[in-house]
Amino acid sequence: MAEHKHKSQAVINHARHTNHNEPEYKYVGTRPVRHDGLDKVTGRARFAADLNLPGQLFGVVVRSPYTHARILSIDTSKALIADGVQSVITGKDFPAVQSGDPHHDMCVNLMARDKVFYEGHAVAAVAAGTREQAYRAAKAVIVEYDPLPEVLTIDEALKADGTVLHSHMFTTGVKPRTSTSSRSTSSSSTPSSHLTLSLSKPSPPSTQPPAPSPSIKELLTSYEPSAVKASNVNAVYMFSDGDVDMGFRSSDVVVEREFTTKPVHQGYIEPHAVVADTGQDGRSTVWCSSQGHFNVRSQTAAMLGWETARIKVIPAEIGGGFGGKTTIYLEPLAVLLSLQSGRPVKMVMTRDEVFRATGPAPGAKIHIKLGADRQGHLVAGEAHMAYSTGAFGTYAGDFGARAIFESYRIPNFLSRALGVVLNTPRSAAYRAPSAPAAAFAMETVLDELAEMLEIDPIELRLRNAVVEGDKSTTGVPFARVGLVECLEAMRDHPHYNAPLEENCGRGVASGYWFNIGEASSVVINLNEEGTATVVTGSPDIGGSRVSMALMAAEELGIHPYRIKPVVGDTESVGFTEVTDGSRVTFATGMAVVKACQAIILQLRERAAIMLGVDVSDINWVDGHAVYTNPATPVADTVSLSLKEITQAARATGGPITTTGSLEAKGAGPGFAVHMCDVKVDKETGVVRVIRYTASQDAGKAIHPSYVEGQIQGGVAQGIGWALSEEYVYNSEGVMENPSFLDYRIPVASDLPMIDTVIVECPNPHHPYGVRGVGETNIVPPIAAVANAIYSAIGCRLRHLPMSPMRVLEAVNTSS
Amino acid sequence: MAEHKHKSQAVINHARHTNHNEPEYKYVGTRPVRHDGLDKVTGRARFAADLNLPGQLFGVVVRSPYTHARILSIDTSKALIADGVQSVITGKDFPAVQSGDPHHDMCVNLMARDKVFYEGHAVAAVAAGTREQAYRAAKAVIVEYDPLPEVLTIDEALKADGTVLHSHMFTTGVKPRTSTSSRSTSSSSTPSSHLTLSLSKPSPPSTQPPAPSPSIKELLTSYEPSAVKASNVNAVYMFSDGDVDMGFRSSDVVVEREFTTKPVHQGYIEPHAVVADTGQDGRSTVWCSSQGHFNVRSQTAAMLGWETARIKVIPAEIGGGFGGKTTIYLEPLAVLLSLQSGRPVKMVMTRDEVFRATGPAPGAKIHIKLGADRQGHLVAGEAHMAYSTGAFGTYAGDFGARAIFESYRIPNFLSRALGVVLNTPRSAAYRAPSAPAAAFAMETVLDELAEMLEIDPIELRLRNAVVEGDKSTTGVPFARVGLVECLEAMRDHPHYNAPLEENCGRGVASGYWFNIGEASSVVINLNEEGTATVVTGSPDIGGSRVSMALMAAEELGIHPYRIKPVVGDTESVGFTEVTDGSRVTFATGMAVVKACQAIILQLRERAAIMLGVDVSDINWVDGHAVYTNPATPVADTVSLSLKEITQAARATGGPITTTGSLEAKGAGPGFAVHMCDVKVDKETGVVRVIRYTASQDAGKAIHPSYVEGQIQGGVAQGIGWALSEEYVYNSEGVMENPSFLDYRIPVASDLPMIDTVIVECPNPHHPYGVRGVGETNIVPPIAAVANAIYSAIGCRLRHLPMSPMRVLEAVNTSS
Repeated sequence: MAEHKHKSQAVINHARHTNHNEPEYKYVGTRPVRHDGLDKVTGRARFAADLNLPGQLFGVVVRSPYTHARILSIDTSKALIADGVQSVITGKDFPAVQSGDPHHDMCVNLMARDKVFYEGHAVAAVAAGTREQAYRAAKAVIVEYDPLPEVLTIDEALKADGTVLHSHMFTTGVKPRTSTSSRSTSSSSTPSSHLTLSLSKPSPPSTQPPAPSPSIKELLTSYEPSAVKASNVNAVYMFSDGDVDMGFRSSDVVVEREFTTKPVHQGYIEPHAVVADTGQDGRSTVWCSSQGHFNVRSQTAAMLGWETARIKVIPAEIGGGFGGKTTIYLEPLAVLLSLQSGRPVKMVMTRDEVFRATGPAPGAKIHIKLGADRQGHLVAGEAHMAYSTGAFGTYAGDFGARAIFESYRIPNFLSRALGVVLNTPRSAAYRAPSAPAAAFAMETVLDELAEMLEIDPIELRLRNAVVEGDKSTTGVPFARVGLVECLEAMRDHPHYNAPLEENCGRGVASGYWFNIGEASSVVINLNEEGTATVVTGSPDIGGSRVSMALMAAEELGIHPYRIKPVVGDTESVGFTEVTDGSRVTFATGMAVVKACQAIILQLRERAAIMLGVDVSDINWVDGHAVYTNPATPVADTVSLSLKEITQAARATGGPITTTGSLEAKGAGPGFAVHMCDVKVDKETGVVRVIRYTASQDAGKAIHPSYVEGQIQGGVAQGIGWALSEEYVYNSEGVMENPSFLDYRIPVASDLPMIDTVIVECPNPHHPYGVRGVGETNIVPPIAAVANAIYSAIGCRLRHLPMSPMRVLEAVNTSS
Repeated sequence: MAEHKHKSQAVINHARHTNHNEPEYKYVGTRPVRHDGLDKVTGRARFAADLNLPGQLFGVVVRSPYTHARILSIDTSKALIADGVQSVITGKDFPAVQSGDPHHDMCVNLMARDKVFYEGHAVAAVAAGTREQAYRAAKAVIVEYDPLPEVLTIDEALKADGTVLHSHMFTTGVKPRTSTSSRSTSSSSTPSSHLTLSLSKPSPPSTQPPAPSPSIKELLTSYEPSAVKASNVNAVYMFSDGDVDMGFRSSDVVVEREFTTKPVHQGYIEPHAVVADTGQDGRSTVWCSSQGHFNVRSQTAAMLGWETARIKVIPAEIGGGFGGKTTIYLEPLAVLLSLQSGRPVKMVMTRDEVFRATGPAPGAKIHIKLGADRQGHLVAGEAHMAYSTGAFGTYAGDFGARAIFESYRIPNFLSRALGVVLNTPRSAAYRAPSAPAAAFAMETVLDELAEMLEIDPIELRLRNAVVEGDKSTTGVPFARVGLVECLEAMRDHPHYNAPLEENCGRGVASGYWFNIGEASSVVINLNEEGTATVVTGSPDIGGSRVSMALMAAEELGIHPYRIKPVVGDTESVGFTEVTDGSRVTFATGMAVVKACQAIILQLRERAAIMLGVDVSDINWVDGHAVYTNPATPVADTVSLSLKEITQAARATGGPITTTGSLEAKGAGPGFAVHMCDVKVDKETGVVRVIRYTASQDAGKAIHPSYVEGQIQGGVAQGIGWALSEEYVYNSEGVMENPSFLDYRIPVASDLPMIDTVIVECPNPHHPYGVRGVGETNIVPPIAAVANAIYSAIGCRLRHLPMSPMRVLEAVNTSS
């Protein structure tokens, strides 16, 4: 079968199909070239490393060569007298931070205090006149270490008497979060049981061979949190409903499996970079690329012990983030080096530093068990998971435990996840954090169930898919969601029944992501000639400028190119949360619409002054203030265009401006269903994805091209995660593949054109029905690829990456 | 007498003296160090020339060596192949501009088309890799000129058959603007006469020797505008009231004199500089220092034939402007060079270029005649003036004709001013444009009248000073003004009766400036920790950041250092007019207050949500939302600080933000009275100012130190204008002193400490009573110095500068 290269993109609108009242939009849903497009393809867009200030120094971080060690001493005297050096800082130069402080882990991660916790952990930083001088000076910083035993795997971390990284770390979050009422309308009336952590009863016999010993379930369920004994488990998250034991007992089929995934990096092309310029007044201006400059401001301020208002953060363009730029690494160091030297300081990570010292997605170990009746209705589910969050704890387990069963009605379930610390870089967010590993397990096991029950895999999912009114894992009922529509779109897609050639297979998987709302702010200024400047606080990581312009254009009734979307710095627009959680088109979009409505009121008021009539007799119609004489409504209408009103603005009260700020509520959950064809070379074990079709519920695609771009990007990253990406450590915990030559992300030639089907089931909480679309798409690919490989070779792979070596091993074992 | 070096500053508040209801302010009127102070004194503040972008080119202007010539050809072929050259532009690269276009003169001034009109006129521009390459390439542009006769003086310009610069220039503005009703309450009931331009009746015999022949009056009144014959007079402005002939006939004393002033430069330390970066999308970002980046945007767009929204202007700090940076010189050239080369282009003028090619204040010729009764009441005034506006017409004459009689009640007056074009650089605004020359004439003649009538010069002015209800020159009655209070402050000042040593003299003069309002916009964002960011569109040329912070602090009830005042670019704040007309503290201040009031309403609403009460029961008191239970108003009050409310903002609706935009009306006119002691060295003619006290009505001094700074700066510039500054041209119109060595502005060692008395007569149209204070202070110094010189040597000097040569001549003539 020829590799699928033609482009096939579709949009299926369920608002139109199911609700004839949906308005036809003039601009929303169209595909203008993004406002920042030419700048980006011609190299004019300015990234953080493009900035240079007069008198600027270059800063370099001194990093630990040890994976785990006590710092006995740091001698900076030689570095301080090295050529060109203006400042040297260590952990002692930052305010002390207590273990109870919410910023403790971030502060210690950014600059070690008494211990280093991973190879690459920052222990000092120097600023010198040139990059070369700074690197030489960094080498002159003499650090005396007392090595400690490393903890490099989840198994080691959970050993009863093993090394404990943080003597202050006691497990939190252990209280089970149980639904207060029956989760599924079809479930039994058994009251929810308050499951305890000691739950480790033997599962009923599986229809599959038993899991390898010592099993992941055993390892994970044997961990007992303690209030007196520190451990490497920073948190346990647990959700449950129904009676799991009873559920499995009443199931006709049960599948029980174990999975492992490796830490993978977001692989953004642009390394972290910052320029900080701190004045004698103790105020600092910071240029950097991030997913949220307001959080750069607050995090930097927290580490320095400053008020946020002392720092101004100016967002540069961002060369990829995918979650990895929601937190900071260099900024407080640069600010402090600048404060000490009295000079601007620039810092730019090398790729090596990005790998060794920034946050990958956690690796995971997952045990899952699923029971169903003969008709394919899920009856019970149980999952035990551990996420390796690196040197410090994160929320990773929470999202895993919440995501794994979220897409399906399962009357009896328990999901439990541990966050486990290791001597590796602290993990960070990466597109739908923790969900891809969970979906890998869940969707692979569903595939097995479908096969056992001889039910079409999409049909099996349709029988269990959550719909409006079903309870989520946390017990909150869903509003309208589009999982069924996505499944149907894939079932009805020509791809699903296309013939397969030899050694080829096809897999299906679904995915889920929460999506969030949160705070966004917007400023709108109308210009003299009837154009509008729309300033938001959301860095544009995926076309949000044009999406904001489209919504503003729709509201104001002017062409999107008469809108200038701008990403404002922390001083020119109100507080805006990070560009993450797939929230920008949803939440910042809502703020844009709110501000536009305020502007339209002003436009009507100005028109009323110009016409000498009452504002209540003026409507805003297609970019015009239309006055209808209430006495003679038909004959006597006058209309003024937005441009006519802005040109006269100074005579009617001055410039027309407003802000729109809100805390957005009602982000609609995102569902996706992907379908993947692979071809397996049984001699080399190489798996090649030859066709890929991804459907996803966008609620409403404001700019379909950028929704498609998000889907395609998420799929590409998911395929890399599935097939080739992993952190390779030697036995001492030193990363062995910290470059894009050895850490293998998919390049264009590795992938087919990724076809997309945008499904539109409007989110009732957004004026245009928008749901976040940035993350859900990375959730299904691993399972889709794994299921396709099974379809091709008849073996299930449950450990990532599904590299040629592993595939070959599976082929050889099964044959 | 020892030179006066101690500092003496006073504030006299007439609101408090006369109105016991004026509130006591907590922050307004205090003197915190300006927010940008440390950055400016430590060199961290960034001016336009401090910016460098990757790949940046350097642009240089090719300038005419001729004063007046036709351009026969421009050969750019050699320049285009010169080392490093990326772009060469000439007038042909800009859209054609018709003579009727309001931007015609600006466009042709910035880049000559078929003629050059002054030495230094731009004829081409080049952009190359380095500054040196650009200068070499500029020399390789070959321009063939056909020289034309120069017009270098007002006399030559007005010659009946002399050279005419612009064949399209016909005089405008000739219709006399006559008051529609009697101007002074004390004037006769004679109806206003509609005076015509042909008014040139012989004046009644003067008590002084007749003016030299050919008199300036004769020269100026003999000019007849024509609708068919082009001339060098771009406009005639005329204002009158009463019956001037009758007025002089009924006067007991009449003084008639003639004055000349020379063009002088604003002398800003920072030359014009710009960096422009134009993308493939045809949008440009411009960094430059200006007094108004919104006008840089619209003027640049106009010259390029673009919509304003294609250009983003980012204001750099400004190293002095004084009116000279209200217009543009380099920006469209840099934008176009950048568009053509696809690279950022930086241009920085040399000091030589600043002198030869930017706009000085016009020189003037003034004839003035003043008649009074024996008690010193002014009865009639007549003024004929010509302002030399350089190569193109400006509004200069308008302001001169409106300002000359504005400070005094004169029942019968005529003021008429011509704007005359010459082959010199086009004049630009300079602090109170045209008024200093007018005041030089008026206040010197008043001094003569006082002497003749043996009335104390301050007393004479008090007898005629305008007060609330008196009509202005244009017939509009004054609201409350502070001229009388300023005169009294000087009369009662110890300086006025201090003894004078030999060869010393003392002079008094008053000054007036209109002040303006216009459009301003503000964005206010409250930060998490209870601080506020206040973004305005007004470049800070004299401490406006801290003034805005003080007003916001007063309104919000938080310390001024918890306000971060920011000057936003053209995309992050609404349209804001130029920082000129002494408008910023007045108009932008009003916008700040308006926005604060909107924020306070939001704060009250959020507090109501937090407390679960009605917003109408919440007052804003000293930075707190104070809830008083209406049922039990005394006992049951709860208060929430601004910080407590902002910390909870995300739970009560999101970030708290607003804008405030307005077209400010009711700018209060500014009056000043200055007193000056000089010591004259009769052997060398050197005049040294040894003591200077300046009073000025600030309405309300928001930050008294920066009001004092404005006064001291204006005085210093006025003294330079009086004693040493002038453009020196050779017979071909080539400037001979284009450097600060030869063009002599006063330096610190030339001046005594300038004492100030801030008089506060509140402007009823501003919430804090503010009047503009930036300009009035440059109006009195020339006359004050001239009157002091007369007091010292017994000779009146009426031609500027009053250089050692002229003083010596006067001393020798009189002795």
